[in-house]
Amino acid sequence: MTTFRIFVRFRSSYPIVLMYYSKLFGKTNKMKPADADSANAQLLLQAGFINQLAAGIFSYMPLGLRVLKKIQDIVREEMEAIGGQEVYLPALQPKEPWVTTGRWDTIDVMFKLKGHGNKDYCLGLTHEDVITPLVKQYVNSYKDFPVFLYQIQDKFRNEARAKSGLLRGREFSMKDFYSFHLSEEDRADFYLKAADAYRKVFDRIGIQAIYTEASGGDFSKDSHEFQTPTESGEDVIYFCEGCDYAWNKEIFDGKNGDTCPKECGGKVEEMKSIEVGNIFPLGTKFTDANKLTMKDEKGESKQIVMGSYGIGPSRVMGAVVEVSHDDRGMIWPKSIAPYVVEIISLSSKDEAVVARINEVASALHDDLEKSGVEVLWDEREGLSPGEKFGDADLIGIPLRLVVSEKTLVEDSVEWKERTNKEFSLVKIDQIAKEVKSFVNKK
Amino acid sequence: MTTFRIFVRFRSSYPIVLMYYSKLFGKTNKMKPADADSANAQLLLQAGFINQLAAGIFSYMPLGLRVLKKIQDIVREEMEAIGGQEVYLPALQPKEPWVTTGRWDTIDVMFKLKGHGNKDYCLGLTHEDVITPLVKQYVNSYKDFPVFLYQIQDKFRNEARAKSGLLRGREFSMKDFYSFHLSEEDRADFYLKAADAYRKVFDRIGIQAIYTEASGGDFSKDSHEFQTPTESGEDVIYFCEGCDYAWNKEIFDGKNGDTCPKECGGKVEEMKSIEVGNIFPLGTKFTDANKLTMKDEKGESKQIVMGSYGIGPSRVMGAVVEVSHDDRGMIWPKSIAPYVVEIISLSSKDEAVVARINEVASALHDDLEKSGVEVLWDEREGLSPGEKFGDADLIGIPLRLVVSEKTLVEDSVEWKERTNKEFSLVKIDQIAKEVKSFVNKK
Repeated sequence: MTTFRIFVRFRSSYPIVLMYYSKLFGKTNKMKPADADSANAQLLLQAGFINQLAAGIFSYMPLGLRVLKKIQDIVREEMEAIGGQEVYLPALQPKEPWVTTGRWDTIDVMFKLKGHGNKDYCLGLTHEDVITPLVKQYVNSYKDFPVFLYQIQDKFRNEARAKSGLLRGREFSMKDFYSFHLSEEDRADFYLKAADAYRKVFDRIGIQAIYTEASGGDFSKDSHEFQTPTESGEDVIYFCEGCDYAWNKEIFDGKNGDTCPKECGGKVEEMKSIEVGNIFPLGTKFTDANKLTMKDEKGESKQIVMGSYGIGPSRVMGAVVEVSHDDRGMIWPKSIAPYVVEIISLSSKDEAVVARINEVASALHDDLEKSGVEVLWDEREGLSPGEKFGDADLIGIPLRLVVSEKTLVEDSVEWKERTNKEFSLVKIDQIAKEVKSFVNKK
Repeated sequence: MTTFRIFVRFRSSYPIVLMYYSKLFGKTNKMKPADADSANAQLLLQAGFINQLAAGIFSYMPLGLRVLKKIQDIVREEMEAIGGQEVYLPALQPKEPWVTTGRWDTIDVMFKLKGHGNKDYCLGLTHEDVITPLVKQYVNSYKDFPVFLYQIQDKFRNEARAKSGLLRGREFSMKDFYSFHLSEEDRADFYLKAADAYRKVFDRIGIQAIYTEASGGDFSKDSHEFQTPTESGEDVIYFCEGCDYAWNKEIFDGKNGDTCPKECGGKVEEMKSIEVGNIFPLGTKFTDANKLTMKDEKGESKQIVMGSYGIGPSRVMGAVVEVSHDDRGMIWPKSIAPYVVEIISLSSKDEAVVARINEVASALHDDLEKSGVEVLWDEREGLSPGEKFGDADLIGIPLRLVVSEKTLVEDSVEWKERTNKEFSLVKIDQIAKEVKSFVNKK
């Protein structure tokens, strides 16, 4: 059992590794971290998904990185599906593009630094300032529009107070999408497509995200956020169940229990929430600063209109933990779970039984591997069933399969889903088929 | 033909997008960039694969990012195959771990910056200092060793003079792998496995990389580099064709034409080269500083021994261009080409012929899409055949298929591989099959 053996199968951006728990880097901790200020920080740290290097700065351990990459891949697929072309812009940025847009001195959370020759740099915390002159270099005609570019890249913010684990960090993963249009009408049309793509992202991830009218900040009179309701959220929204409309507190002129301003007959409910995405009309702020114009088919010069669309994969990961956990641990949706299945083999005093348990677990493991199912096998020796079950609940793999002396008496494996309290026994000759059906079920 | 339509198929870390050239962001430039100091900078910039934001700092455009990610994926697969577990550590790092190892003040190319509360940070340019205390937190027993961790992450170096495009940048992609062992013997055994994995990486990428004895820098008396011979390289190595042994100039006590010190009877040849990878014994420098020890099975305390193993995917991308181009443009190996096939449809004065050309090209495009072949279709209107062929040569897609009035007379498509001078005609009803066979051929 202690032979070092890892199966690797490549199907996606991360190899599908059928991992022995004993070899997995990032053991769980029996103690809750003392200083965690939020459920996501506490559980992700305790379960060995992330590790804190400094306030607001986290290392992703193998299990945590698998979740992060699955979220990034879902986001990537939906951005491609609306025509986004992936680029990758630098984190280290010279001062000049930020001077052009007038933002070098106005953003208080910008990390600034000096390089050789006393050159000024900053660390990118958003990329409008850099992407607008880039686009300008490659467009020659109105036929080149609209332009849809996105990236999944790490951003940096010099937060006065980093907090809430992955929700507000100093270094974090961001998907930022920028669109460039010949007209405000085209920009507005695309805005609706982007909103739909965002709905698909959050549906696939398995998290509620309410489309919420917001102020749009400095650039535009209106914009929308996707807000995940939870008591631990920093934001406050007003949501009408009657018409599904929601407003961020900043722009809502009313209070909890008021009748819906849309006159649908419903009442608005005040709720705390986490902003997991936002979509912004940017107008011509950045194209004006960069003198990005284009002659249309009639020869008229048009100021290019922009939109931007953000989702923070690391924040989404934290938000999922906030809304999907219980007192025993995390509960990962199947689409972003680090592994979809965890096999637990229990020990026995009878060596022949131990051999049979390992034989069944190993055969199941190999069979699932061939089908591309991601399996973590807890084959650790010297641990009690309670310790193994505790770890399984903490790390929150959707499906737990136990092979033990007791289940073998019934020629079976014990089946338990993380979201259910019920246990059942599935015959050994049926189990692989049942697991594959579970994995493929929507 | 100008309808906006992009096919997306997901099979890998990047969606397989069958792209219309007219919609591709990142047009080629007719002019060579005036200030490019190397073939890779010149060609990658001219072809719209990368864009320079500042000296040594590049944005990856859609074509360039596809190449970079393919290199990263090959590296990732081979690191997983030798037991590496992927992690992702921060770029923004506090001062403390660097003080622990005594390196805060000794690395001249370290970018340093201040955050809120006057806190000192640096940007990671390697991760021994951060990963050693991380590993220390998660190991409890000798049974937890060896530990194999790697990441693919961006690094930053405050180079006095960035140069040679992707070969020496201030921000660059790095795969860094760290191993932790209970004994020097175990470390040395793994070193050979890592070297083999590196050979597989460079074989798959399609680049020569000579295993070269090197000095090992500050940490160890010996180490190895993988060196790609090219006149544009910064390094100098001495290579013996007789026994395939090579030495970095730093440690070679001899000159061009000397008889091989290995007494194989051969002669050593001096050559310029690019270091595309390195493997290092690290000894106990970092584990001593971090007091990382472990009791072995006999209860004896062991100082943990480390190794580190680096490949820079962005530098490898630059090196491939240096060694694989001609005066018309880049020549991508199939394994890392942004697209494997480029279809070029030419125009005609006869509208019926144009319709037939587009019908054939479109059907081929769709057929290949269903098989997961990555295709770029140059369907641009108003360009001469010469312009389209020039762009195709410049961007260097391995297989070029031309559909034109001339080829249709023969019921054929013109087949030309970027590495060959020969053209041939392949019957339309055979072409998709032939392309798939080309794609799957080793």
